[in-house]
Amino acid sequence: MAKKLLVAQSGGPTPVINSALAGVLNAVNVSQAYDEVLGSINGIEGVIEGRFISMNKFRDARRLSLLKQTPSSYLGSCRKKLPADGQVYEDIFDIFKKNDICAFVYIGGNDSMDTVNKLSKYVEATGKDVCIIGVPKTIDNDLVLTDHTPGFGSAAKYITNSIRQLYLDTSVYDMKSIIVAEIMGRNAGWLTASASLANDEKIQPVDIICLPEVVFDEQKFLEKAQNVISSKDTTVIAVSEGICDACGNYISAVGAQDADEFCHAALGGAGKYVETLISKAFGVKTRSIEFSTLQRCSSETASLRDIEEAFEQGGYGVKLAKEGRSGVMAGITRLKGDEYSVEISAFDVGLVANKEKKLPGYMISSDGFGVTDEFVAYAKPLIHGQPHIIYNGGVMEFEVRNIK
Amino acid sequence: MAKKLLVAQSGGPTPVINSALAGVLNAVNVSQAYDEVLGSINGIEGVIEGRFISMNKFRDARRLSLLKQTPSSYLGSCRKKLPADGQVYEDIFDIFKKNDICAFVYIGGNDSMDTVNKLSKYVEATGKDVCIIGVPKTIDNDLVLTDHTPGFGSAAKYITNSIRQLYLDTSVYDMKSIIVAEIMGRNAGWLTASASLANDEKIQPVDIICLPEVVFDEQKFLEKAQNVISSKDTTVIAVSEGICDACGNYISAVGAQDADEFCHAALGGAGKYVETLISKAFGVKTRSIEFSTLQRCSSETASLRDIEEAFEQGGYGVKLAKEGRSGVMAGITRLKGDEYSVEISAFDVGLVANKEKKLPGYMISSDGFGVTDEFVAYAKPLIHGQPHIIYNGGVMEFEVRNIK
Repeated sequence: MAKKLLVAQSGGPTPVINSALAGVLNAVNVSQAYDEVLGSINGIEGVIEGRFISMNKFRDARRLSLLKQTPSSYLGSCRKKLPADGQVYEDIFDIFKKNDICAFVYIGGNDSMDTVNKLSKYVEATGKDVCIIGVPKTIDNDLVLTDHTPGFGSAAKYITNSIRQLYLDTSVYDMKSIIVAEIMGRNAGWLTASASLANDEKIQPVDIICLPEVVFDEQKFLEKAQNVISSKDTTVIAVSEGICDACGNYISAVGAQDADEFCHAALGGAGKYVETLISKAFGVKTRSIEFSTLQRCSSETASLRDIEEAFEQGGYGVKLAKEGRSGVMAGITRLKGDEYSVEISAFDVGLVANKEKKLPGYMISSDGFGVTDEFVAYAKPLIHGQPHIIYNGGVMEFEVRNIK
Repeated sequence: MAKKLLVAQSGGPTPVINSALAGVLNAVNVSQAYDEVLGSINGIEGVIEGRFISMNKFRDARRLSLLKQTPSSYLGSCRKKLPADGQVYEDIFDIFKKNDICAFVYIGGNDSMDTVNKLSKYVEATGKDVCIIGVPKTIDNDLVLTDHTPGFGSAAKYITNSIRQLYLDTSVYDMKSIIVAEIMGRNAGWLTASASLANDEKIQPVDIICLPEVVFDEQKFLEKAQNVISSKDTTVIAVSEGICDACGNYISAVGAQDADEFCHAALGGAGKYVETLISKAFGVKTRSIEFSTLQRCSSETASLRDIEEAFEQGGYGVKLAKEGRSGVMAGITRLKGDEYSVEISAFDVGLVANKEKKLPGYMISSDGFGVTDEFVAYAKPLIHGQPHIIYNGGVMEFEVRNIK
C-alpha cells in the first residue's frame, strides 16, 4: 500500500509560507519516506472535499527553488475551524484512508494549530494511523512557545525598510511632515514594534510606536506627539491595526460583520484615526499609510534567515511524521550566547492552539510608546540576509497553480 | 577665480533622483571641469537663500555608489515656481556670483524645467555667465520630447511586481476577491498603464486599467467589470489617481485647498471610489490599496536600467554645461532596431517646460480599459535589471544629510 503525505496551508499568507511548503517537499524528496506528497487546495476545506493535487512537479530542484521564494500560499488557504466534534472527523479520515495518506502536515497560525490539535486528539481517541503535524506560520509572531514564527522576520524587514524609505521621501520639503504607518498584527504588537529597527546612527525615523498591548490614551499620545513634533520636522508614527481604548474597543474597527470564521473582526482605520488626531491637534501636514497586504506578500524584501528557518521547520515537520509523532508542531528555541543560533524541535500543539503571545512588558518602554533594547536585541537578527529573487525582464517569477 | 557647479533637486522624489545627482557628481569628479560642486538644499528655494553645502564627500567612490542607490532627494526638494520676472532673478545671480557658480544643474520634472527655462532666458537677456541645465525626473513619465523619464522605469517595476504579489495574496481563499490599486501619475496614465506588465503566461492579474486619458464612465466601467468578475475569481483593477468624469472633475479630488505652489490639486480617493462602486454593484469582496509614496521611494524594486540612465543623464548635464550650453535639458531618444538602445542628447528646455505628455491614443485599447501591444513594447524594456542594494544586518543603507 502506498504511503502518502498530505500538506496544506491555512490562515493569512506570508512571504515564506511557501518556503515552509518547499521544506516539506524537499524533506520528502530527500528521505523518500513517502511515495508521494499530495497538496490540499484551500487548507482543511480542501481536505474535507478531497481537493488534492500531486506535488510531484517539485521533485524538480529548480521548481522547488522557485517555490521557496514565491510569496503567498501556493496551495491556497482558508479560515476554517473544525467543530469540537461531529461527522466531519470521520469524513476526513475516510478521505485520508482512500488516498493512502498516513501523514498530514498543516502549515498555519494559532487557529490552524487548533485544527492540528483536534485532528490529533481524534487520532488518539480512535487509533487512526495518521500522523498530524503542525508547522507554524504568521507575520504576527503571536504563537506561544516557539521563539518566533516564519513570516515575522520578513514582514519586520519590510516594515523596517519601508519606513526608512517613506521617511526619506516625506522629509524632502522644508516643512514639518508626519507619517502615520498602520501595521498588521491584530492583538500582538511584535510587527508594529519592529518599526523600531528602522532607526540607526544615520536616521531615526521612528519616535512613537502605538502597540495593542498598551491602552491607547489620546491625551498621553498627544502629549508625546507634541514633544516629538516640536523638536523634529519629520517623524513616522507606527500604529498597530489593533490598538484599543480603555474599554477594549478597537480604535476604528471596521465592520464586525466582516468577521471571518476565526471570529476576527476586520480591522483597519487606526492609522487614519491617528492621522486625524494629529492634524487637528497640531495643524501639521500628516499622512497615514496603510501597508495593507503588501507587508505579508512582498518577497524581494524578505529576510533570508526567515526563508531558511521556514524551510527547515517544514522539513522538520516531515521528520516528526516519519518518527510517527502526532499532535506536535515544529518550533524554534533560541540558544544562549553572543551569536544568534537556534534549534528546532517539537512542541505540544495542544499547548499552542488558540493561544496568543503578546509583547511582554519588559520589551515595552516605560512610557508605553516605544520598545526596549531587549526587543531590539530579540528582533534584529531575524531580518538578516537578502534572498536572490528570480526575475524575467524585471518581472518577478513565481510558482503558481492555475488561478481562476 | 574658482569655477563651481551648483546642483539641486526639485519636485516629487523618485527612486533614482539621487542616481541623477550621482551622475552629475561623477562627471565632475572625472572631468575635473569644476573646482567644486555645491548642492542647494530644497531646490530653487535654497538657491534664493544661498543654502548650499559642499558635495566634496562624494569624491569618495564608495559614498557616491551608495548615493546612487539611495531613494528620494538627498538635497531635499521644493515645489516652487519662479515668477515671470522680478528682483528674485537679480538676487539669484548675485548669489551665483558670490559663490563662483558658473553652472547650475537642476534635476526635476516639467514644472522644474520652467525654472530652468526662466533662468536661462534671463541669462540670454542679461549676458550673465552661468550655464543653466535641466536634468529630467518624474515617475509620471509626462515630460515631452524625451522618450521616458528617470524614475518611471523603477516606479513601473514597483507597480508591476507589487500587483503580482497582491494578486497572489488575494487569490488564496476560495471566494471572489477584487483589488483596486490606486496609482500615481496625475493627468498622465503612463504609470497606471504599466500595471499591464504584471500579466505574463502564468498569471494575468490585470484586466481593467482606468486611465486619466479616458473619461471615467461609471456605466461602461461596471459593464466591463461585470464581464471580468463573472469569469474570474480574482482580478486587480489599476486606477489612476487622476481619473476624471465627463466634466473634467477628478473622481474624488481631495481638497483643492491642498493645492501646492505648482497648482496641483492634491489627489487621492479614486481607488476607494471604485472599490465602493464595485462592492455596491456586485456584492463581491473588494479592497482598495493606495500605493501612496511607496511607489516613488522603493529602492530594492528599482530598475537597474532606470538607475543607469538617470546616472548618465546627470553626467550628460555636466557635459552640456562644460560645453557652455544653456537652456537645455538632457533627454533620451530611443533608437530603432530589435534591441533596446537609446542615445542621450540635449533638448530645448523651452519646448519642455510646463508641458504634459499623456498616453497617446494608439497605446490605449479600443474599449479604453487597457493598453495595446505598442505600450507594452514601449514600457517592458524600461523595467530591466536589479540593483545590488547594500544592507547592514537587514537594514538598507543610505546616504543622507542631517534630517531634523
